[in-house]
Amino acid sequence: MRATLLYGAGDVRVEDVPDSVVKLPTDALVRITASCICGSDLWPYDSAAPTDRPARMGHEFIGIVEDTGPEVTTVARGDLVVSPFAISDGTCEFCREGLQTSCAHPQAGFWDEQPLEGAQAEAIRVPLADGTLVKLPVGPDAALIPSLLTLSDVFGTGHHAAVVGGVTPRTRVTVIGDGAVGLMAVLSARRLGAEQIILMGRHQDRTDLGRRFGATDVVAARGEEGIGEVRELTGGHGAHVVIEAVGTMPAYRQALGTIRPGGTISRVGVPQYEDAPIGWDSLFRHNIRLAGGPAPVRAYAEELMPDILDGSIEPGKVFDAATDLKGVPAGYRDMADRTRLKVLINP
Amino acid sequence: MRATLLYGAGDVRVEDVPDSVVKLPTDALVRITASCICGSDLWPYDSAAPTDRPARMGHEFIGIVEDTGPEVTTVARGDLVVSPFAISDGTCEFCREGLQTSCAHPQAGFWDEQPLEGAQAEAIRVPLADGTLVKLPVGPDAALIPSLLTLSDVFGTGHHAAVVGGVTPRTRVTVIGDGAVGLMAVLSARRLGAEQIILMGRHQDRTDLGRRFGATDVVAARGEEGIGEVRELTGGHGAHVVIEAVGTMPAYRQALGTIRPGGTISRVGVPQYEDAPIGWDSLFRHNIRLAGGPAPVRAYAEELMPDILDGSIEPGKVFDAATDLKGVPAGYRDMADRTRLKVLINP
Repeated sequence: MRATLLYGAGDVRVEDVPDSVVKLPTDALVRITASCICGSDLWPYDSAAPTDRPARMGHEFIGIVEDTGPEVTTVARGDLVVSPFAISDGTCEFCREGLQTSCAHPQAGFWDEQPLEGAQAEAIRVPLADGTLVKLPVGPDAALIPSLLTLSDVFGTGHHAAVVGGVTPRTRVTVIGDGAVGLMAVLSARRLGAEQIILMGRHQDRTDLGRRFGATDVVAARGEEGIGEVRELTGGHGAHVVIEAVGTMPAYRQALGTIRPGGTISRVGVPQYEDAPIGWDSLFRHNIRLAGGPAPVRAYAEELMPDILDGSIEPGKVFDAATDLKGVPAGYRDMADRTRLKVLINP
Repeated sequence: MRATLLYGAGDVRVEDVPDSVVKLPTDALVRITASCICGSDLWPYDSAAPTDRPARMGHEFIGIVEDTGPEVTTVARGDLVVSPFAISDGTCEFCREGLQTSCAHPQAGFWDEQPLEGAQAEAIRVPLADGTLVKLPVGPDAALIPSLLTLSDVFGTGHHAAVVGGVTPRTRVTVIGDGAVGLMAVLSARRLGAEQIILMGRHQDRTDLGRRFGATDVVAARGEEGIGEVRELTGGHGAHVVIEAVGTMPAYRQALGTIRPGGTISRVGVPQYEDAPIGWDSLFRHNIRLAGGPAPVRAYAEELMPDILDGSIEPGKVFDAATDLKGVPAGYRDMADRTRLKVLINP
């Protein structure tokens, strides 16, 4: 079968790999019908060292179950399913609490940690299929597929950011970053009723989409100037919730500058730093909270899906290009160049 | 009048200073009947540079109102009052939300920031008296005074730690630090019904008091060994809430080691660091939250006082010594030497 491999920074190739097959009784084999490239795929695409043991890429997919191990009970051959970006058993104490990204099962983990599987491919072996996969009540060619695919990561991640940030109808929210996750955070804050949503981003096509998703204000300036504009828009004190959807230190500093006393900085951009200011002058003096992490999108699928199915939200609008597997390397290039926001893959 | 002054590390003196008087229409003048030394006073006592412009010390007191400005309406001459460690107007948007430590009034702030007033003294000028002071329904010699004095800081701070940590009856809590705030955090977690409370501390007289306050387990070991013991006591995954009541980097690292995935590290020890680990390996991977800051103890006074008045809790047991003003320098020494936990002052 064909699959996407990263050989180092800027070096993505689509090659033949051994066919994925069911190996364990709890596995499912899924033929992928829709996948995509994630903003987080760009970190290794930008910086990975050259290797002759390339990484399998992709952690978001929809597909048709082709085979299941004997212990799989919740999905069957022919079902259309969507997968979260993390594998989870659905039964451990963390899964039961809705923190499937911390599932305690030895086979649990992120798709990105699987050496022999990836979603930017023709097929994939899904461990712990009962806990991981979510059945979709539509066909593989439905117009809703792009929106349903966002349940595998970016929409669930934006929703997580809003939820752990504590967004309510009385909340002023600032979203830092106009990538797919930032835009999904805007949509999610809107969905939870936020009174004001300020999107910080400087790509007008993206911030325009952000306005369609519910942003009430857009701030293109960065650094001190951007912070000043947000503070002015929020009556001087900053936002109750700042969603940091980038992951860099400048973005974190922007969050510190725009958060209101007593507010919550909710991080969903994977931090590209380990140490950062959290002392008296940054978080402590004004009881700023820090929340966030990899989103347990599995926990949110059932809650978010109805709004997609009834057409009240269209998170799939984050996809501004589509390709087959052959076009994946170009898709990475386009996303890295910021000429494309998010590329859908129909293998 | 007599007041306590810090001239540098280890150099506390009680000297004559100009009498405190009402200066502004919203001021009250309070004759102090009970005050104390705080663990946080030990930071400057340990490390302040020598100066000929000494700092006035003390931020916790109970006293009798002797005079009020013409705009003061909620307290009157003769009232016994307790003061939070922060001055607040009680009317700004932050005060109304219960975050009085971030009061937006220009006269608001911490007692420790007042150059000409301090609570380890015979009297004190209280700005914004209506917002700041809380009337007490007892006399100045009541047996409950030590417990009521803890409403000015340490009990309210321990309660804040438990509240922002999200302590509930289903919560396993670890408290790092057996100082007065750590012990008050134990009492507060118990009061909120926590199912398990592990106190990390190595002074047995203090941890014994912690057990009386509700600690279910005591861990004296520190570092990796202490972390291992807490993890074992919590079924392997760590505590839902870790209250960090010290403020040092080793204490923060202890918190990182003992927190459960999805849990909250609640800091109330003033951080003696600015940068610290918060990236993928520390907070992000498992959605650990960080909360805390200076406690808005004013917000909690009315809620906590009834349990003191009816005798169901005795936070005043943290005081293990009492002195007059002359004994204050020795009180600092004893607390710095860890031979006393918390020294009450009857000026």
